[in-house]
Amino acid sequence: MILIISLIFSLLSFSHASVLDFCVADYAAPIGPAGYSCKKPAKVTADDFAFSGLGVAGNTSNIIKAAVTPAFDAQFAGLNGLGISAARLDLAPGGVIPLHTHPGASELLVVVQGSILAGFISSDNTVYLKTLKKGDVMVFPQGLLHFQINAGGSPALAIVNFSSSNPGLQILDFALFKSNFPTPLIVETTFLDAAQVKKLKAVLGGTG
Amino acid sequence: MILIISLIFSLLSFSHASVLDFCVADYAAPIGPAGYSCKKPAKVTADDFAFSGLGVAGNTSNIIKAAVTPAFDAQFAGLNGLGISAARLDLAPGGVIPLHTHPGASELLVVVQGSILAGFISSDNTVYLKTLKKGDVMVFPQGLLHFQINAGGSPALAIVNFSSSNPGLQILDFALFKSNFPTPLIVETTFLDAAQVKKLKAVLGGTG
Amino acid sequence: MILIISLIFSLLSFSHASVLDFCVADYAAPIGPAGYSCKKPAKVTADDFAFSGLGVAGNTSNIIKAAVTPAFDAQFAGLNGLGISAARLDLAPGGVIPLHTHPGASELLVVVQGSILAGFISSDNTVYLKTLKKGDVMVFPQGLLHFQINAGGSPALAIVNFSSSNPGLQILDFALFKSNFPTPLIVETTFLDAAQVKKLKAVLGGTG
Amino acid sequence: MILIISLIFSLLSFSHASVLDFCVADYAAPIGPAGYSCKKPAKVTADDFAFSGLGVAGNTSNIIKAAVTPAFDAQFAGLNGLGISAARLDLAPGGVIPLHTHPGASELLVVVQGSILAGFISSDNTVYLKTLKKGDVMVFPQGLLHFQINAGGSPALAIVNFSSSNPGLQILDFALFKSNFPTPLIVETTFLDAAQVKKLKAVLGGTG
Amino acid sequence: MILIISLIFSLLSFSHASVLDFCVADYAAPIGPAGYSCKKPAKVTADDFAFSGLGVAGNTSNIIKAAVTPAFDAQFAGLNGLGISAARLDLAPGGVIPLHTHPGASELLVVVQGSILAGFISSDNTVYLKTLKKGDVMVFPQGLLHFQINAGGSPALAIVNFSSSNPGLQILDFALFKSNFPTPLIVETTFLDAAQVKKLKAVLGGTG
Amino acid sequence: MILIISLIFSLLSFSHASVLDFCVADYAAPIGPAGYSCKKPAKVTADDFAFSGLGVAGNTSNIIKAAVTPAFDAQFAGLNGLGISAARLDLAPGGVIPLHTHPGASELLVVVQGSILAGFISSDNTVYLKTLKKGDVMVFPQGLLHFQINAGGSPALAIVNFSSSNPGLQILDFALFKSNFPTPLIVETTFLDAAQVKKLKAVLGGTG
Repeated sequence: MILIISLIFSLLSFSHASVLDFCVADYAAPIGPAGYSCKKPAKVTADDFAFSGLGVAGNTSNIIKAAVTPAFDAQFAGLNGLGISAARLDLAPGGVIPLHTHPGASELLVVVQGSILAGFISSDNTVYLKTLKKGDVMVFPQGLLHFQINAGGSPALAIVNFSSSNPGLQILDFALFKSNFPTPLIVETTFLDAAQVKKLKAVLGGTG
Repeated sequence: MILIISLIFSLLSFSHASVLDFCVADYAAPIGPAGYSCKKPAKVTADDFAFSGLGVAGNTSNIIKAAVTPAFDAQFAGLNGLGISAARLDLAPGGVIPLHTHPGASELLVVVQGSILAGFISSDNTVYLKTLKKGDVMVFPQGLLHFQINAGGSPALAIVNFSSSNPGLQILDFALFKSNFPTPLIVETTFLDAAQVKKLKAVLGGTG
Repeated sequence: MILIISLIFSLLSFSHASVLDFCVADYAAPIGPAGYSCKKPAKVTADDFAFSGLGVAGNTSNIIKAAVTPAFDAQFAGLNGLGISAARLDLAPGGVIPLHTHPGASELLVVVQGSILAGFISSDNTVYLKTLKKGDVMVFPQGLLHFQINAGGSPALAIVNFSSSNPGLQILDFALFKSNFPTPLIVETTFLDAAQVKKLKAVLGGTG
Repeated sequence: MILIISLIFSLLSFSHASVLDFCVADYAAPIGPAGYSCKKPAKVTADDFAFSGLGVAGNTSNIIKAAVTPAFDAQFAGLNGLGISAARLDLAPGGVIPLHTHPGASELLVVVQGSILAGFISSDNTVYLKTLKKGDVMVFPQGLLHFQINAGGSPALAIVNFSSSNPGLQILDFALFKSNFPTPLIVETTFLDAAQVKKLKAVLGGTG
Repeated sequence: MILIISLIFSLLSFSHASVLDFCVADYAAPIGPAGYSCKKPAKVTADDFAFSGLGVAGNTSNIIKAAVTPAFDAQFAGLNGLGISAARLDLAPGGVIPLHTHPGASELLVVVQGSILAGFISSDNTVYLKTLKKGDVMVFPQGLLHFQINAGGSPALAIVNFSSSNPGLQILDFALFKSNFPTPLIVETTFLDAAQVKKLKAVLGGTG
Repeated sequence: MILIISLIFSLLSFSHASVLDFCVADYAAPIGPAGYSCKKPAKVTADDFAFSGLGVAGNTSNIIKAAVTPAFDAQFAGLNGLGISAARLDLAPGGVIPLHTHPGASELLVVVQGSILAGFISSDNTVYLKTLKKGDVMVFPQGLLHFQINAGGSPALAIVNFSSSNPGLQILDFALFKSNFPTPLIVETTFLDAAQVKKLKAVLGGTG
């Protein structure tokens, strides 16, 4: 009986040559709208599905007293094409992640340590604010402006996840004041005073 | 021969009772993540697939000297579920559509009249600027900050289209200064001076 | 204070090396089901997001007194992967765009000049007809047969948009009478008279 | 040991109250762009996932000597939302399924009995023809005109499947000649002779 | 000047009546293939976007010495339609989450505390195993069998996220031994000995 | 008149150079998350859209008395990117397709010959069983464990279709007992007895 069971091998082995349960990124091959090309299955190992970069706290000895460490498909090849990614947020006391959007993804934040005040603004200009404690979760719908602030006196840590392996990140202050966006155009399209624009450009390194 | 051809009726008529080539919005029924519920096919007429609201120029006698007239699924029931929508932009001389994003769609702009300076900012803080003349087209990838300015001395008109029947619209100045976003939080998450924030809130009607 | 703000640079600059807010077509690289491969971000310029081909009226000195000028991903590299495209329709008096389908997209038409009689046919063989004037919009749900006819005595111009960057175009008369579709098979699958088929093949250049 | 294993019950039973592995159609509730509303899980039985309508040969005693029997979501509630459906084609000797499209799906045909000549036409007016024998498979890409003809002297049977639970069906002859499409408009948009149009309308019952 | 700026209100306020940046679940209304119906925007508050259920450790005083606490759309209304969800895994020393699949989602696991041995099996029967320490991330591609085991001597905690707001969960042992799956059919479709099946059914409460 | 009609050629021929109604797989070029790269349209022939592999009965002279013959995108290049595929199941009397899942697709089965007992298990551990006769159809929702057994005394044949051109296939027994899954881990994550695991590994060739 054992003998004949082993005959199953030849019958159902058809799919082995072309297994595509996953598409680990091959960074050297072409990229398309759906993501990176796939590494050949034979070269894929368990290491491709793991990422150790979120294990180290980011350096928060800086002005925003915060750090973001990403695990997107550009850092973590195993995520390619799977529609999910992650990042860690470290916020020292007083730390803040400035207003930003993810153009192509919704975000789900889990507070692992400390307390965080988070918020987003909807298209009808309503601000949704929540003070989150350890273990609380908050979702930020796709493409909307949002922020995170350490709301306690001790370091805060959050794990954030995205509904895309390439969520993108557009930080408002950087888009305006760390770019080559000409000051007159910024003034014209935001109503900010030119002096305010120049002051922040000087700080952040914007040109134009 | 004519007689028997007509027998085809009974054979291939199967799909008639449940035609769902389209899903015209029934605004009175529940809405889900994919859009509005569908009007019963028997009640659908040609009028459901047409919309006359873009035929009238918007009133540009205002501070931005500009007007936006939408044809989204909330205005145009026939678009529901079809992944496309439109709007018209009227820009008087000096007119501007301030910095904004569409959280759920890419935008394609066609200049119908006049000249428009348009731009968007990518996640790596590069500003892509183009001066467009009549007939020129420009695309603004999903979720990124962008703007349009009349670049000529005469009125400009553009038709814009979106890759969603519900593209959304988040205007930066309104999100910040016409909302209930508390001033201290704006300052903390944008680095703008409190005085600047208060000045624009006074103008636009923001609270908090 | 200005000094320390500039420290943000190093913290949040992580995404810069792999920006994929967009995927401008690289026509020389492989194409996949989701579109063309992406041009390297460093080589992308503002020109990739603009297209000037719709600014010139098509030549309508022909039998259909009409012209179609496309801005699909094959013509406009910046559209690749964004799920949207456009075309301009020029219809001289008496002009007509013959019955056709877009296999992979819904279409949204905006009349920019003149008057257009447009219509589509649903799966249950209902014909939806509308006479559209300047500024009117009409939607043609995905994959259904539709047409446009100049309904006035003066030239008409329309901008059409699609819910795909590669909408496709199948013109009924060309599929039947300008192809290598053997006449006996056309007769058998359409019930048209062979004489009618041969007459139109002679005109349009069909073989078989 | 057995005792404690049973404690797993309470731990991992969380998802039971809201199982949505499937969404069996509730034909009495609202329909949306993504399909029918879901029947309550408690009322779902194995019968909802099976359909017996394809077991009976269609009646081919008619002019096209053919019959189509569908198993779409409108007939088979268990398919709702799953992106797949089926139909059976019966073709007596000389039988033909006239030129048609499925606006929202690709089709995969498997010949179960007999021989079938099938073909489709692409956007560049190339006709792809194949004579298929028992067991052969052919795919018809989404939205393109295609047909099937019995290619042998005996009855043919095929099972066709679609990449949508609501593929739609637009039969060219019915759209033109069994509808309310006014004859002058048909002539204008197809170049067919009016006499040809009237002849087929008389047969198929078209008006206008 | 302030006066006229405020005129912007009327111009760009068009989208306010129909904001659909999000679709918070209304559990009392119909469910469709794309998710729950949306709560009326006017009734949505910040609380709808937050969830506190992951803040409390699950009770691991059980046979698997483990607990799973979900934040799916059925528990967390704000996730509806956004394509993302989460859960927390608590694993006491010796704890294990048995072999299982998520039929509709990929999973991303972040180890928050302790050490976890995790693995999944691909379609070609390759087992991908990783021992993960605090901060390590691992991805489990959609629909594949996988498991998690506490790999250290102290409690382990992981946050897992999914690429769907309704990922589903099929636990192998429960599907086989806690269901009404008749023992002869289990034996026939798994090759397990009937005695083994009956033993585990007795423990887990299976019938049939 | 004939003369001028032929002028249409130049007008509407724009899309010919870049026809992408389909994307026939080029197995030698890179693969991405959305499928294989496309063969150049000029090299595509009708043969690319047909597949003859399902015409031959599989060899059922084996222990499971069954055979599966696939027509996935890896075997049938024309399916690439179209979201559909097929397979044939041959079940001799007493034949069985063991418990398995398709990680990325729903399945639709049509019984062509004989009688089949089929079933699937949902996330809430309900078993849905049906005995199907010739012509009956059954659907297996995405990612759930299911099986097929010959329910009659004669050979059974079924055509199955999938909602993906790359549905995947994970056979439970092979994942556990024909893989390199270490026995202690199997025992720990399934509660099976080590003796049972070793017995089946000996039969199926598993290691570890």
